[in-house]
Amino acid sequence: MDTIKAYIEENKQRFLDELFGLLRIPSISSISEHKPDMVRAAEYWRETLLKAGADRAEVMPTPGNPVVYGEKIIDPKLPTVLVYAHYDVMPVDPIELWKSQPFEPEIRDGKIFARGADDDKGQGFMHAKAFELMVKTNTLPCNVKFMIEGEEEIGSPNLGKWCQDNKEMLKADVILVSDTSMIGKDVPSITTGLRGLAYVEVEVTGPNRDLHSGLFGGAVANPANILAKMIASLHDENNRVTIPGFYDDVLEVSPEERADMARAPFNLDDYKKALDIDDIHGEAGYTTMERTGIRPTLDVNGIWGGYIGEGAKTVLPSKAYAKISMRLVPNQNHEKIAQLFKKHFESIAPKSVKVKVTPHHGGQGYVAPTNTPAYRAASRAIEDVYGIKPVPFRSGGSIPIISTFEQVLGIKSILLGFGLESDAIHSPNENYPLEQFFKGIEVIPRFYKYFSEK
Amino acid sequence: MDTIKAYIEENKQRFLDELFGLLRIPSISSISEHKPDMVRAAEYWRETLLKAGADRAEVMPTPGNPVVYGEKIIDPKLPTVLVYAHYDVMPVDPIELWKSQPFEPEIRDGKIFARGADDDKGQGFMHAKAFELMVKTNTLPCNVKFMIEGEEEIGSPNLGKWCQDNKEMLKADVILVSDTSMIGKDVPSITTGLRGLAYVEVEVTGPNRDLHSGLFGGAVANPANILAKMIASLHDENNRVTIPGFYDDVLEVSPEERADMARAPFNLDDYKKALDIDDIHGEAGYTTMERTGIRPTLDVNGIWGGYIGEGAKTVLPSKAYAKISMRLVPNQNHEKIAQLFKKHFESIAPKSVKVKVTPHHGGQGYVAPTNTPAYRAASRAIEDVYGIKPVPFRSGGSIPIISTFEQVLGIKSILLGFGLESDAIHSPNENYPLEQFFKGIEVIPRFYKYFSEK
Repeated sequence: MDTIKAYIEENKQRFLDELFGLLRIPSISSISEHKPDMVRAAEYWRETLLKAGADRAEVMPTPGNPVVYGEKIIDPKLPTVLVYAHYDVMPVDPIELWKSQPFEPEIRDGKIFARGADDDKGQGFMHAKAFELMVKTNTLPCNVKFMIEGEEEIGSPNLGKWCQDNKEMLKADVILVSDTSMIGKDVPSITTGLRGLAYVEVEVTGPNRDLHSGLFGGAVANPANILAKMIASLHDENNRVTIPGFYDDVLEVSPEERADMARAPFNLDDYKKALDIDDIHGEAGYTTMERTGIRPTLDVNGIWGGYIGEGAKTVLPSKAYAKISMRLVPNQNHEKIAQLFKKHFESIAPKSVKVKVTPHHGGQGYVAPTNTPAYRAASRAIEDVYGIKPVPFRSGGSIPIISTFEQVLGIKSILLGFGLESDAIHSPNENYPLEQFFKGIEVIPRFYKYFSEK
Repeated sequence: MDTIKAYIEENKQRFLDELFGLLRIPSISSISEHKPDMVRAAEYWRETLLKAGADRAEVMPTPGNPVVYGEKIIDPKLPTVLVYAHYDVMPVDPIELWKSQPFEPEIRDGKIFARGADDDKGQGFMHAKAFELMVKTNTLPCNVKFMIEGEEEIGSPNLGKWCQDNKEMLKADVILVSDTSMIGKDVPSITTGLRGLAYVEVEVTGPNRDLHSGLFGGAVANPANILAKMIASLHDENNRVTIPGFYDDVLEVSPEERADMARAPFNLDDYKKALDIDDIHGEAGYTTMERTGIRPTLDVNGIWGGYIGEGAKTVLPSKAYAKISMRLVPNQNHEKIAQLFKKHFESIAPKSVKVKVTPHHGGQGYVAPTNTPAYRAASRAIEDVYGIKPVPFRSGGSIPIISTFEQVLGIKSILLGFGLESDAIHSPNENYPLEQFFKGIEVIPRFYKYFSEK
């Protein structure tokens, strides 16, 4: 397989230059003013696929941001790999914590720093370059299709319908996705489970205007105090979620599976040290890996209300808000959970305030089997490059569209992620190690080869 | 007393023009970039006093914003009234709720709309114009001194020391202050009590950086959830503050006094309707007027953390913050309460987070006696103009400096406020009715007359 290494070595700088071009486009899907950037990022992907050797590549409209579709069909009788990635990224707040500009990529300490460096421009681009490599070195062993969307970070609201509408065009044997992480660069792993997601925004209204906290404080419900009380009540003393019915559909994992999970390497001291925390915090009766892997959770992602500027203002705010998300495990239905949340949250509001609950996006959890040709091909490909057999593990993250693919297209996905925990995705100073980027480009052609040999 | 009415009638438009000049200066004391505006507002007051007829007026430095001092001594043997007001104002957030620009005053529906229209530029300016009136019509019956500060809204951190340093210069028989409200324009009242204030800012830190809520949610303490839980625990099921020792120094008000207070007009339905709330909310066992008048309270004035922009972001924030103030009743020491809060808040933090409590400003409560010549003079003056004898009442608000005046200068204050509850002080669309502004200018010379006749 020296062809692969040689091609990468020869084209390293160009690969990075081309990725940087994509990283410079601020394609933040949750902020409407970035609409034109979404189209620019989609066009950039289309050109990348064409230059890499696609027979066809186009930017296809949806009611939201467009989807880039590309393909190279070398022989209809051969297997087909469908690559999924997304060109949209998360917002950059808090901007003041970035050490370099989020949309001006910079290499420091062997890592690419930029919003999207890992999630999912860096990881997605590995597939474009691996595809180019196989085409240019005449080693492409099967057909390839690309589906690159621009709404993953807002819950892929239009991709399910788009897949339905283009079911025939998307026919494939496996969906290949690099949008997850490994346990560590010395502990390669393949993600075999994802959590589902229900995301809501709540608004608590007290008086019809901000009031002077001296003249009214103590006599009128303060929505910030009430919101705090309501949020606090969502967990009990064992850190279990108190919403009635929340755990009803959770499948308990067998003691055997839990014992299996416990074999994955995990060092609590290192974990605490890396996050600079004195103690961990979670549901009683479960380990850290179990808390993120097999248990549903509820987190405040944002909270705000009243005066948050410099200094002191004695105001009794009219409104307080929170963004709250629940990570779900397979078998929990995200729409049902969002409804349970809404009903419960409204029911615990005192009469002195008004409460509005607005669901944002959501998605189902996913479990991938390990006894498939695709899993075995991925495992061999990683072992070739890393020298270690990867371990299967369940991630706490969510990629809601993966379960939609299964439902709509009837195709299982293989989650071949090269991210690392230290990549700070969704955070300031997101980064992606050059080593992982280039190793990923090495692994992918090997996956195609082993998968085609099945 | 037709001289008074005649002079006001003749100069109405000029009075407003001059007040508008002061209102146009954005003298927000809590935001450091407004430093130059503080000096401009002080200079404006100095010129106003000189033009009105002061023998002397100067802008005197302090380690913070300057104090304007002015005086007219007509006869050292006559009594002296010391007027106190402040030229600084509150911030204007949320700016989007203002119907006109906060620093471009506008008259609508017989009211002046601007930040500071009431608190305390509008109310303070009445004293400048009443003083001018007495000088120009040769009716000034006593000596007058003015002390106009620029840090009231941030707790007057430098005025106590300044008073101490200028004790001799400030000698007077009474301090006259218009920085409070009446129960209603048909229910004139004189404030005889003010609450004290302890104001703190809290910071709760979980992990050392924002984390992906999927990968870490449920396993690492979320500071926004923890802060909510900590804030929620500060009140018990009877809405009593749970900080140990919080109520230790609270003087219980006698049943007779409570019966007296209950005679002040209060309509619960009107109150709820004005605020658009379905229910009131406060400490069990006390009426609304008691909750703000004689009981200490704790309110969140601001809370923030995590992602608060448009759309959804699945972040587990590194930090969450709150601004929390406690209104205190006479005999509670604000420094002691701030310390009790700090100790308690730190003690309830779980080991999985770090907590920092920073005290902002604070101040003591105040009770004014009603059996003094100054109170009687104020009562007669108001009755002359409003046709109704004013009722004494205890306000829930705080003017921490009033108790400092008593301690440092040994002078009691008379709280001759003309604000109304609907003036929206500290809120968007702060306003001050023209009727109250001009009636105030009518009342003040009468107070001087009756007080000098004592």
